[in-house]
Amino acid sequence: MGGFRFELLATDGRARLGRMLTGHGTVDTPAFMPVATQGSVKSLAPSDLRAAGAQIVLANTYHLMLRPGHELVRELGGLHRFMGWNGPILTDSGGFQVWSLSKLRRIGEEGVEFRSHVDGTQRTLTPESCVAVQHALGVDVLHPLDECLAHPATVAETERSLALTERWLGRALAAHRGAGSPGALFGIVQGGSYEALRRRAVESIGALDLPGHSIGGLAVGEPKPVMYDTTELVAGLLPADRPRYLMGVGKPTDLVEAVARGVDLFDCVMPTRNARNGQAFTPDGPLNISNARFARDGAPLDPECACEGCRGFSRAYLRHLFMARELLAYRLLTLHNLTFYLGLMRDMRRAVAEGAFGPFRSRFLTRYGVESVGDAADSPADSEA
Amino acid sequence: MGGFRFELLATDGRARLGRMLTGHGTVDTPAFMPVATQGSVKSLAPSDLRAAGAQIVLANTYHLMLRPGHELVRELGGLHRFMGWNGPILTDSGGFQVWSLSKLRRIGEEGVEFRSHVDGTQRTLTPESCVAVQHALGVDVLHPLDECLAHPATVAETERSLALTERWLGRALAAHRGAGSPGALFGIVQGGSYEALRRRAVESIGALDLPGHSIGGLAVGEPKPVMYDTTELVAGLLPADRPRYLMGVGKPTDLVEAVARGVDLFDCVMPTRNARNGQAFTPDGPLNISNARFARDGAPLDPECACEGCRGFSRAYLRHLFMARELLAYRLLTLHNLTFYLGLMRDMRRAVAEGAFGPFRSRFLTRYGVESVGDAADSPADSEA
Repeated sequence: MGGFRFELLATDGRARLGRMLTGHGTVDTPAFMPVATQGSVKSLAPSDLRAAGAQIVLANTYHLMLRPGHELVRELGGLHRFMGWNGPILTDSGGFQVWSLSKLRRIGEEGVEFRSHVDGTQRTLTPESCVAVQHALGVDVLHPLDECLAHPATVAETERSLALTERWLGRALAAHRGAGSPGALFGIVQGGSYEALRRRAVESIGALDLPGHSIGGLAVGEPKPVMYDTTELVAGLLPADRPRYLMGVGKPTDLVEAVARGVDLFDCVMPTRNARNGQAFTPDGPLNISNARFARDGAPLDPECACEGCRGFSRAYLRHLFMARELLAYRLLTLHNLTFYLGLMRDMRRAVAEGAFGPFRSRFLTRYGVESVGDAADSPADSEA
Repeated sequence: MGGFRFELLATDGRARLGRMLTGHGTVDTPAFMPVATQGSVKSLAPSDLRAAGAQIVLANTYHLMLRPGHELVRELGGLHRFMGWNGPILTDSGGFQVWSLSKLRRIGEEGVEFRSHVDGTQRTLTPESCVAVQHALGVDVLHPLDECLAHPATVAETERSLALTERWLGRALAAHRGAGSPGALFGIVQGGSYEALRRRAVESIGALDLPGHSIGGLAVGEPKPVMYDTTELVAGLLPADRPRYLMGVGKPTDLVEAVARGVDLFDCVMPTRNARNGQAFTPDGPLNISNARFARDGAPLDPECACEGCRGFSRAYLRHLFMARELLAYRLLTLHNLTFYLGLMRDMRRAVAEGAFGPFRSRFLTRYGVESVGDAADSPADSEA
């Protein structure tokens, strides 16, 4: 594993074209990371991910620590070798999953105690152990333990939480530097929907000279304009020479709007999870393959798409597979949705390189189904759900 | 679609090497047909089937007739185009599924009435409609409606049933010839475990000059020696210049033993269904990937196998995927099991071509785990289950 580096190649308005260099290869940004929750992007093999255009994947610290266990993964040569993916891997801190999946959480200055959702065992995560787990996995980009607040939270709650997250970051950084790991530890900017707290978070994290910055605490139930405005605020404050990762976002329109606000990196379960529920993304908006109108439709899912699902099969066949609960349906729809997401990122990179991101954004949103593009923060992106 | 032809290329004892030519390509025999129950070999795409070495697949008339419906498949260009498989397709008659899956069966001279297991609607299958369904699907090899008896059945029951199946075959053949379809209608030899009835069945079917013969009514609960003896009896009576298909068989040892008795064609859900239950076939016998002893096993599932699952992943990772119920587990194990089955057929073809089938059979059974090979009908093949 070599070092971590980010190169900013071009900008167009606030949209950025860049390149993230890691010990496991290069990632062209803006980039979308498919989610390999348990060390597998559900239904796909690494060769499928490459075919879809993926350059980096995200794995979940929380899930892998509980099953199969990070020490087992370390013994077997690290996560890249274990899951057969030789490109870069980024892990989250596990904090979000502790809050959303586990039971009996007890949070203290030291860290968090919780019960595993897999086997009910009592577990702890501290800033130090969280970093150690990610070192055992051997990932390229890791994250410090943070507290995740539900939306809405009061300013007092958010301020208390932010202070704890900042103290935890200090401990995580010390543990990370002490271990001499080649992975890049990103800082997570929290602060809820409070501008003053977000500013304070950026300032305090900025002093630490971290290789990248993650925008946390969004896409957790807040109104869309709050998400867009907070993203714009934080991205505008972060240093230009480091990558900016908007955690857990989002819908295709959200990706376009966040790139327009200066974000470089994304992850979301939407393309993979929605595929398993029959939703396919297309340039004309999402469609649900179970819809009766596709029963005798001999056209491909998306005539403009080159994925395996769109090249070889009709909507009628994909609908049949889905209605009959055939496993192939989940794989082909997942492959399609990731091909769509990753193609969208590639199109955005090209648009920034050509200085044509504005017209691209306008064209995409119009066709995808967002009618008013004046103030994107007001656009009815939720209508796609 | 061109005509159907079978060429017998070599024999070694009773084992045969041949070639089945169809309008959708050639099948080297002995051959195994992966089962695409609902128009999809569960978890695999046609490209995966090709990679595993498949030349022909089996689809179920009963399932496709109920969902999505054969008329829909016809409208969309036939089953080959619908499922994206351009090689030969064989369909069974649906009789076996009517007896094993549907409810409220009423059998009469005309045909059989049953309730769909999908939506509860009342349906009928007659010898004529059964052939018409398969014509709508546009398959290369089709089967006449037959009655499937459970084991054991009395000689009187079996004789009555066989007579009905013979009358139905006459009607199916008239309907098939009347329609001028290019598909090849095989005759099904029934007769239970009664030698006299099997002989009578072969004689009556032999008079019809059909392009191929299927051995039915086995692998339905009878003792293994009965299955082997009946297979040997029937294969020995059938004309040498037509392919012989042993329906629904079987375990790897069964394939070897049936080829030794002159069978050319097989289908079975075992490699695909067992994969989804975690069972992997290897030259040293089957193993269950969920076994705790594989938790830290960095070796491939089968070091001698070239499938995607064995090339890129460890037993530890496959076990993790299976324990975590990751969809990729089912795909990789299915791909492996079919690669094993289809590789076994290829090895048997090579052995027959080299006049070395006897030693091959002995080596295979010894290594796979069958200890006594003197009289194969006595071999404890069930021990693999």
